[in-house]
Amino acid sequence: MDFGFDARTADLHEALHDFLLDHVYPAEAVYEEQVAAAADPSTPAGVWTRPPVLDELKAEARRRGLWNLFLPDPAYGAGLTNLQYAPLAELTGRSPHLAPEALNCAAPDTGNMELLAEFGSPAQRERWLRPLLDGELRSAFCMTEPEVASSDATNIATRIVADGDDYVITGRKWWSTGAMDPRCGIFIVMGKTDPAAPRHRQQSMVLVPRDTPGVTVRRGLTVFGYTDGAHGGHAEVSFDEVRVPADHLIGGAGDGFAIAQARLGPGRIHHCMRLIGMAERALELLCVRAAGRVAFGRPLAEQGVVQDWIAESRVRIEQARLLVLKTAWLMDTVGNKGAHTEIQAIKIVTPAMAEWVIDKAIQAHGGAGVSQDTPLAALWAQARTLRLADGPDEVHRAALARRELRRWAPA
Amino acid sequence: MDFGFDARTADLHEALHDFLLDHVYPAEAVYEEQVAAAADPSTPAGVWTRPPVLDELKAEARRRGLWNLFLPDPAYGAGLTNLQYAPLAELTGRSPHLAPEALNCAAPDTGNMELLAEFGSPAQRERWLRPLLDGELRSAFCMTEPEVASSDATNIATRIVADGDDYVITGRKWWSTGAMDPRCGIFIVMGKTDPAAPRHRQQSMVLVPRDTPGVTVRRGLTVFGYTDGAHGGHAEVSFDEVRVPADHLIGGAGDGFAIAQARLGPGRIHHCMRLIGMAERALELLCVRAAGRVAFGRPLAEQGVVQDWIAESRVRIEQARLLVLKTAWLMDTVGNKGAHTEIQAIKIVTPAMAEWVIDKAIQAHGGAGVSQDTPLAALWAQARTLRLADGPDEVHRAALARRELRRWAPA
Amino acid sequence: MDFGFDARTADLHEALHDFLLDHVYPAEAVYEEQVAAAADPSTPAGVWTRPPVLDELKAEARRRGLWNLFLPDPAYGAGLTNLQYAPLAELTGRSPHLAPEALNCAAPDTGNMELLAEFGSPAQRERWLRPLLDGELRSAFCMTEPEVASSDATNIATRIVADGDDYVITGRKWWSTGAMDPRCGIFIVMGKTDPAAPRHRQQSMVLVPRDTPGVTVRRGLTVFGYTDGAHGGHAEVSFDEVRVPADHLIGGAGDGFAIAQARLGPGRIHHCMRLIGMAERALELLCVRAAGRVAFGRPLAEQGVVQDWIAESRVRIEQARLLVLKTAWLMDTVGNKGAHTEIQAIKIVTPAMAEWVIDKAIQAHGGAGVSQDTPLAALWAQARTLRLADGPDEVHRAALARRELRRWAPA
Amino acid sequence: MDFGFDARTADLHEALHDFLLDHVYPAEAVYEEQVAAAADPSTPAGVWTRPPVLDELKAEARRRGLWNLFLPDPAYGAGLTNLQYAPLAELTGRSPHLAPEALNCAAPDTGNMELLAEFGSPAQRERWLRPLLDGELRSAFCMTEPEVASSDATNIATRIVADGDDYVITGRKWWSTGAMDPRCGIFIVMGKTDPAAPRHRQQSMVLVPRDTPGVTVRRGLTVFGYTDGAHGGHAEVSFDEVRVPADHLIGGAGDGFAIAQARLGPGRIHHCMRLIGMAERALELLCVRAAGRVAFGRPLAEQGVVQDWIAESRVRIEQARLLVLKTAWLMDTVGNKGAHTEIQAIKIVTPAMAEWVIDKAIQAHGGAGVSQDTPLAALWAQARTLRLADGPDEVHRAALARRELRRWAPA
Repeated sequence: MDFGFDARTADLHEALHDFLLDHVYPAEAVYEEQVAAAADPSTPAGVWTRPPVLDELKAEARRRGLWNLFLPDPAYGAGLTNLQYAPLAELTGRSPHLAPEALNCAAPDTGNMELLAEFGSPAQRERWLRPLLDGELRSAFCMTEPEVASSDATNIATRIVADGDDYVITGRKWWSTGAMDPRCGIFIVMGKTDPAAPRHRQQSMVLVPRDTPGVTVRRGLTVFGYTDGAHGGHAEVSFDEVRVPADHLIGGAGDGFAIAQARLGPGRIHHCMRLIGMAERALELLCVRAAGRVAFGRPLAEQGVVQDWIAESRVRIEQARLLVLKTAWLMDTVGNKGAHTEIQAIKIVTPAMAEWVIDKAIQAHGGAGVSQDTPLAALWAQARTLRLADGPDEVHRAALARRELRRWAPA
Repeated sequence: MDFGFDARTADLHEALHDFLLDHVYPAEAVYEEQVAAAADPSTPAGVWTRPPVLDELKAEARRRGLWNLFLPDPAYGAGLTNLQYAPLAELTGRSPHLAPEALNCAAPDTGNMELLAEFGSPAQRERWLRPLLDGELRSAFCMTEPEVASSDATNIATRIVADGDDYVITGRKWWSTGAMDPRCGIFIVMGKTDPAAPRHRQQSMVLVPRDTPGVTVRRGLTVFGYTDGAHGGHAEVSFDEVRVPADHLIGGAGDGFAIAQARLGPGRIHHCMRLIGMAERALELLCVRAAGRVAFGRPLAEQGVVQDWIAESRVRIEQARLLVLKTAWLMDTVGNKGAHTEIQAIKIVTPAMAEWVIDKAIQAHGGAGVSQDTPLAALWAQARTLRLADGPDEVHRAALARRELRRWAPA
Repeated sequence: MDFGFDARTADLHEALHDFLLDHVYPAEAVYEEQVAAAADPSTPAGVWTRPPVLDELKAEARRRGLWNLFLPDPAYGAGLTNLQYAPLAELTGRSPHLAPEALNCAAPDTGNMELLAEFGSPAQRERWLRPLLDGELRSAFCMTEPEVASSDATNIATRIVADGDDYVITGRKWWSTGAMDPRCGIFIVMGKTDPAAPRHRQQSMVLVPRDTPGVTVRRGLTVFGYTDGAHGGHAEVSFDEVRVPADHLIGGAGDGFAIAQARLGPGRIHHCMRLIGMAERALELLCVRAAGRVAFGRPLAEQGVVQDWIAESRVRIEQARLLVLKTAWLMDTVGNKGAHTEIQAIKIVTPAMAEWVIDKAIQAHGGAGVSQDTPLAALWAQARTLRLADGPDEVHRAALARRELRRWAPA
Repeated sequence: MDFGFDARTADLHEALHDFLLDHVYPAEAVYEEQVAAAADPSTPAGVWTRPPVLDELKAEARRRGLWNLFLPDPAYGAGLTNLQYAPLAELTGRSPHLAPEALNCAAPDTGNMELLAEFGSPAQRERWLRPLLDGELRSAFCMTEPEVASSDATNIATRIVADGDDYVITGRKWWSTGAMDPRCGIFIVMGKTDPAAPRHRQQSMVLVPRDTPGVTVRRGLTVFGYTDGAHGGHAEVSFDEVRVPADHLIGGAGDGFAIAQARLGPGRIHHCMRLIGMAERALELLCVRAAGRVAFGRPLAEQGVVQDWIAESRVRIEQARLLVLKTAWLMDTVGNKGAHTEIQAIKIVTPAMAEWVIDKAIQAHGGAGVSQDTPLAALWAQARTLRLADGPDEVHRAALARRELRRWAPA
């Protein structure tokens, strides 16, 4: 057992740390101004436009070799293990609106790229994976549906019907992150090709270019008042007899559930890695505020309750981080399936931990904490949402418990 | 001891319940549409415009005699005791964006009206209280400042300097709720007239018409991502050598702290009463969702964890409500000062309770819960903010503890 | 609505307060010494002997008219309503090992007396109720069984079989509180007379004198290491073809479930009333300790975390007390059945609240807190146990939730 | 980074696992019987006698090479690193009344042996360390005092006064674990040799044989209701002008604080390692109970709330274990001082975690959970006590927070 970084991780960690200090943190204020300006309706896409500073950061990150770090396949990305990537993803979480995208490591593109790298045909990889890897295209993942509990994949109602050389897609999706941005050009859509097949062979995934007739991006959903517009928001999208060529199917018909499962493991742990960084950032802000703010004659830092928040934040962060790291190690050593329990465990633990820490940082900031004057309220909304995104915690908790119980079932 | 309503309360409770059913709940969707439309920048005030449906509700509420219920002085309002008003204010909390304003019982106008009724000169009452009582004017209360911990009133930096027959005001305020709405015509500003006086005699309050030279409404603050635009938002306002006649002072010079204290008690309990209603609304939404939503083959309502949330919500609401009611009774029987501990207690208990309940309702709704498709996310943001508005919980907790400890101090 | 005491309650409250100050608190140390001495095996019953100081307190309480306050039937007791009794029972909870028994208001005798007063035949009342009312006899209630989840009454396995003019009882009970004391002379035993009857008509209750052949008191159960010996402990009792005359049946055959339900409501609220007093005592001890103990250069009372415990304790106690009082009022006005939800609510709320407060008091006392040098550890064990006695919290929470959900079920 | 066991750890882990299965678990019932029998006052030491089964287990463990595993110095013990010992100590925590002592790895002897190995003179090591290593002697550590907050070492009031060739010790200690057992032959006593020296040079440690005149073991303290008699209980001991030769001093005069600090790090982490095992045992009991117990028609294991406890237990245990392991690794790689923050962190996290898990297991067991019929209530009392032993959590939390804040202090 050993808790130290290997050399490559240490090097990249330092390089990324420098990049954050030199470029990302200073860009945060610029980004906020550009986001505010984007609300100006005279620009074509208005609120859904990506602020230009993001492209500058991307260029700089690529120049520094901090690019596609998430992709374990060296043919396409940095070829890091999960365990190597974890501390880097954590760092990006410290500035979650800028750093992940700057490094071309932002959801949902990361998951979509992994999916195409693993399951895409050569033609699909050429047409969509390549520009995604180059940061020139953005993509959406259309799985969740408004009418059903989508944490149970068998509920999916969208239909993908073979018709001659085409597939015809009809259904309604929401929480398609990124899809409000007109530059988000490709949608990966999950639907049922065969509702009569066995439970986990009914679903397929298909690539749908945004401009295909019948695709309507209906509206953006808010997250505690936030549009997340600079990142393309979260769209409700309807597919009304949308026709695509049969070769737009990913893998084979009936592979959808398996592909979704393969996508979920890394997707979840990436979220969790970033949440550690978000919590660290919040704790830093909490400490700085506590050290500098005086109330009733002494700094907040000398008040016992604030100290208690800080200590509790520290021990919660440390524990969650170790669990995330161990999970990454298991994914690397015994595979995503072998790490199933731990992936569920971090999904349960990490968003709630981050939410707790950020809440305390907000409280120490008073009114500033809930406003646009600190990143905290937006961080909070993101952490809170991850308690229910990708299946609410309760589903994961029940599953984890059943697995534990199986060890002790009466013979 | 008796836990039943008196006849007048019961009658008003029923009338208000009917008004909510017949007019307010149906207006919620209309309101949301009008708010969305108000984002259109071709209207003069844009996002800061009050949706027209609010005026219709006000007319109807007044017709039904549901008007100014909050005002205990029968010369101006309904003449209810706090204990009588509490269950009514709770009902308004069930639709907090519509009902309080419909009844002319919305903060900060309520506090401002009480303040003018109690401390205003006849001329001040004629000029400002009258139109406020008629729902024709809106007002802001400018107390909190960005640079200092305003929960400690001695920190206030705004200066109110006597100069001939005028007072000259210089300072910076924020969280001036309502002030982004151009129709918000009068600001009550707290500042120091004599920084050399004893701690609690340094402050004064002065009435500043919005259009006075030197008043600049700088920007709206967001609460999580919400502008609260339909209610005039939360403004940062600067006062730059703003000159008003001496008769705009409320009470005498040095009375500011005492007036603020007198305003705070009812203000706090009104917030708490409404929070009970907000929590009840959330619990109702949680139950309806649980009863109707199926996941993994059975309704959420049959899942133990969801049941646990419901039971816990019910017992938390009941307890908080009783504490609020007892506090109202104490304010009526021994005065706001005698009820000081209980007012602090409800300030500690009620926002956290409501936040907890709303959080569970959000979780049961999945993605819909954090979006604009239910009122829950906005309710949550409001409850969360009340954990730090008006002095963060921690200040009240420490004060309450010291009072408790005083009973047991070693002789 | 009114939160004040009526005159009779106020008088009794003062009288009881004086009795505690003058007699009960001073007797606590005496009691501890006598308990320690009772461990001496040369006395006949050893650890299971009631310390003599209890009898002195009983005599004094009776002299002062503080006797059988719990019994609402004026033919037998003080004739107080539940609402009047609640604040008095709370006071007895401040010294739960002495005060309840001193006033002849200790469980399980209280429930047994109520049961006999309401359902007992004249002969049963004469033989057993009379000496119980006089504090000359103690009794046990034998319901819970080791082998089954007794919170579900249909699980009860003990059989009560009619045989000529007798009933023959066979079964095994545990947690028969008081039964280790040889002076505990009468057991009320719940069993099934007709397992084929409808669910709630299978059970009956029968009076079994301790010395009936076939009754074996097997052992005392400990509660976190405590034997509760001075109160007769908690016994495991086996009934091996125990034969009693048919007139020992309480009510009719099949009435057992209904009688148990009638007994439970008051039993639960009495526990909750006392728990409020236990929590108040713990908070008092916490404050005194905090005011007097110095660590790292200043009293605990000046440390923010300790203040936070005190404030939180105060607001939790106040809320729970109000809920208990409202429940008492409901029992008085709409009956135990009408107060069903609230009785469950206090069962959920009060033990957990008391446990929390006592835990904090223990923590502030350090090692002394877990030892015999303060009453805290024993108070804690009692509060903790009430989270599972009489049906674990979870059963009550689920039931309360289902009732809430019923209001919102889809038509 | 690597989360796997090395070969030696894996071997010892398996050997210890087998020893537990073959010998320790089966001995638990025997131990309980012998403890119960030891209450018989006709035996010399009565309740304070070690049950004979312990000596049999010790012989067997030694035979299997499972002996003195805790001692990192290969001259005296197994020579394991902290990281290697951690998983083994965890296993012993599964049966904390038997396994640690069976392996000669029980507190306070472990700490005392380490102390003698590191700081003892050759003569001290020969006379006391040797028989301790052989499991033939037991020892006590007399540091905590009843009158002062001993978490602040400068408070210590016991005096150690040089007088000719002797030291004369006067003071009062409590929570001297093990000292009620007459076979506990040697006390290590902390006191002040020079109250005028710098804060951390005032204290010294001295070896005091039990039978030295002036030593009085006054009474056993209970932990909740437990005497912990089979392990020598927790004694209050007075030292009344106790005279020992000068060579009984450990290290030099003034070294006491430094020696205590050196002893604390390993002592704390050993407690935490065992707590992980206690929590695992409780979770196992919870699962077995849940799988086997039926209430309201279905096993507890199918009830959502119970599943939630199990999932939450699992993720809390995993996180705490990883933090303990990382702390062990830090102690091995950067030393106890470098691991200071982490040692505090595990002290904060682990007892609370174990307490929480055990509490849920108790709840699932109903009455059996609080009684002697499961190990749970005793486990709970131990975990709860560790929240305040060795300095209450609050002291560690404040210290950890101050260290965190130091990183962000305004320049």
